Amino acid sequence: MKKFLNTPDTYLRDVLTGLAAAHPELAVDADQKIITVAGGPQRGKVGLVSGGGSGHEPLHGGFVGAGMLDAACPGEVFTSPVPDQILAATKAVDGGAGVVHIVKNYTGDVMNFQMAAELAGDEGIAVATVLVDDDVAVKDSTWTAGRRGTGATVFVEKIAGAAAAAGGSLDDVAEIGRRVNAASRSFAVALTACTTPAAGTPGFDLPADEMEVGVGIHGEPGRGREKLKPAGEIVAIALDAILSDQPLGTGDDVIVMVNGLGATPLSELYLLFGEVAATLSGNGVGIARSLVGNYVTSLDMAGASITVCHADEEMLRLWDAPVRTVALRWGS
Amino acid sequence: MKKFLNTPDTYLRDVLTGLAAAHPELAVDADQKIITVAGGPQRGKVGLVSGGGSGHEPLHGGFVGAGMLDAACPGEVFTSPVPDQILAATKAVDGGAGVVHIVKNYTGDVMNFQMAAELAGDEGIAVATVLVDDDVAVKDSTWTAGRRGTGATVFVEKIAGAAAAAGGSLDDVAEIGRRVNAASRSFAVALTACTTPAAGTPGFDLPADEMEVGVGIHGEPGRGREKLKPAGEIVAIALDAILSDQPLGTGDDVIVMVNGLGATPLSELYLLFGEVAATLSGNGVGIARSLVGNYVTSLDMAGASITVCHADEEMLRLWDAPVRTVALRWGS
Repeated sequence: MKKFLNTPDTYLRDVLTGLAAAHPELAVDADQKIITVAGGPQRGKVGLVSGGGSGHEPLHGGFVGAGMLDAACPGEVFTSPVPDQILAATKAVDGGAGVVHIVKNYTGDVMNFQMAAELAGDEGIAVATVLVDDDVAVKDSTWTAGRRGTGATVFVEKIAGAAAAAGGSLDDVAEIGRRVNAASRSFAVALTACTTPAAGTPGFDLPADEMEVGVGIHGEPGRGREKLKPAGEIVAIALDAILSDQPLGTGDDVIVMVNGLGATPLSELYLLFGEVAATLSGNGVGIARSLVGNYVTSLDMAGASITVCHADEEMLRLWDAPVRTVALRWGS
Repeated sequence: MKKFLNTPDTYLRDVLTGLAAAHPELAVDADQKIITVAGGPQRGKVGLVSGGGSGHEPLHGGFVGAGMLDAACPGEVFTSPVPDQILAATKAVDGGAGVVHIVKNYTGDVMNFQMAAELAGDEGIAVATVLVDDDVAVKDSTWTAGRRGTGATVFVEKIAGAAAAAGGSLDDVAEIGRRVNAASRSFAVALTACTTPAAGTPGFDLPADEMEVGVGIHGEPGRGREKLKPAGEIVAIALDAILSDQPLGTGDDVIVMVNGLGATPLSELYLLFGEVAATLSGNGVGIARSLVGNYVTSLDMAGASITVCHADEEMLRLWDAPVRTVALRWGS
């Protein structure tokens, strides 16, 4: 296993120790495994909590900060955070206006966030849940009933985070989060499998001339194997899947993310974005905003995902609102 | 070859097309291969131009913007930009106060930037050159007379860029750039080789249980092969090399970068940073500022580099000045 680590058992703790050392503006509790904004909850603001298995960095810890998440709960690699951990994060960010849980649709995450929401309710904290299920590749995959939650999580966290920062109520923030998810579609392609620290070997075998089309962010199987193709043809496969599920045309505005899965050079992501932009523009679709880079990764997997959100004016306004996190930062 | 590309021949052009589509705030000339800030040169401000072979993204194009570079000249992958290209960039950013060339110490880059500087001089543009040679691993390697230029390039571009934005003269900007380089040391370790689009196969063979210690950003050999070690021991090797070349102790402030070489997950970079921070703090050295992420890459190489800059107050002040580029962005 070719990784920079000390032991697989201490991996997550060691990562969080480094995160804490690098970012004094974050409060990182390496014991409870909770990342919050230093300075505690903001009175009267709806709190936003997300989390899930580690291995997708910068998701979610990299999105904690003003205008986005108030807390992230990293589980062990590809393993859901536990209810007590989520409950502790929920209590830590409650400013009296309720807390939104942003949950990627994987069975373990859904169950544990639901349990934490009930426990929080018992303690008088109102929780609303936004489920993210944007991956059009497959339904009911290895770890999921229904569609998997992937790249749209970044859009939901940014836009719902801006709504909360602007003073939105618990219902407002959850509603815009759900609307962003409903407007978003993703599709991913893997060129290699990823290796978890605990397993030490790649999660699947992929011949040197093949790609996994529709792969999940834990290396779950997609729609099948195909021979590796030129980038333009790969983008066509992904956009066909996305646009056949949600047709877009002239006059529609979108937010697009071309996201690396961990081991793909930034240059290749820009190359893919060029193909995406040409295709969408050719269909009359306007790319109003975009992200190109590593945002929702799968450890050391070579591959990329494309996420398209059909954005309305409110979403774009909230997208443009200031954000101050490790991985997204703009505005005054 | 597992890459997202159309053909090796069109690789750089296709990457630049995508970069242009993603970042309308940049002016990307895909024919001349020049990336500048949209809106042209700023009258009276010293211009900053850097460049080098492609394959190290986000270097240098990701650092074009207010407070950092005025232009980047990407060569073909691992190939120096040509003198005409550098000259065109120099002329494009000349605002009448002269232009600083920031050049990584590789034979081709040094020669071509020198020729461009002479041609610019013939046209009445004063050029000062800052040579970056921070890599303590080896002297006189495959592509280099003297030390290689690597991670410190980011520090030089940021701090010299801030000096230019603050109204520094050509001499001022070049002088602080040289001072940052002289105060910086880097060391890199590779876990895998990288593959260029043109070659299609990895640049060297590295057994499954070995690492290349002191590797260069083109896969040039380092100090030798060693068995893969725990992260703490790898950091000790790198910091020993850095600190034996430039001793640091109690009261010294540093800017530290833990940089991924392209295929290493962000989580592993944070883990390495935790080890770096513990060691430096243990020696009484203060980590005043830090960067953790992919800044100077080597295509799809798994590996990481550590750069330490012994910073004085002026450097820290200029580091903190606002910057608005694709890859670095902070301040008002």
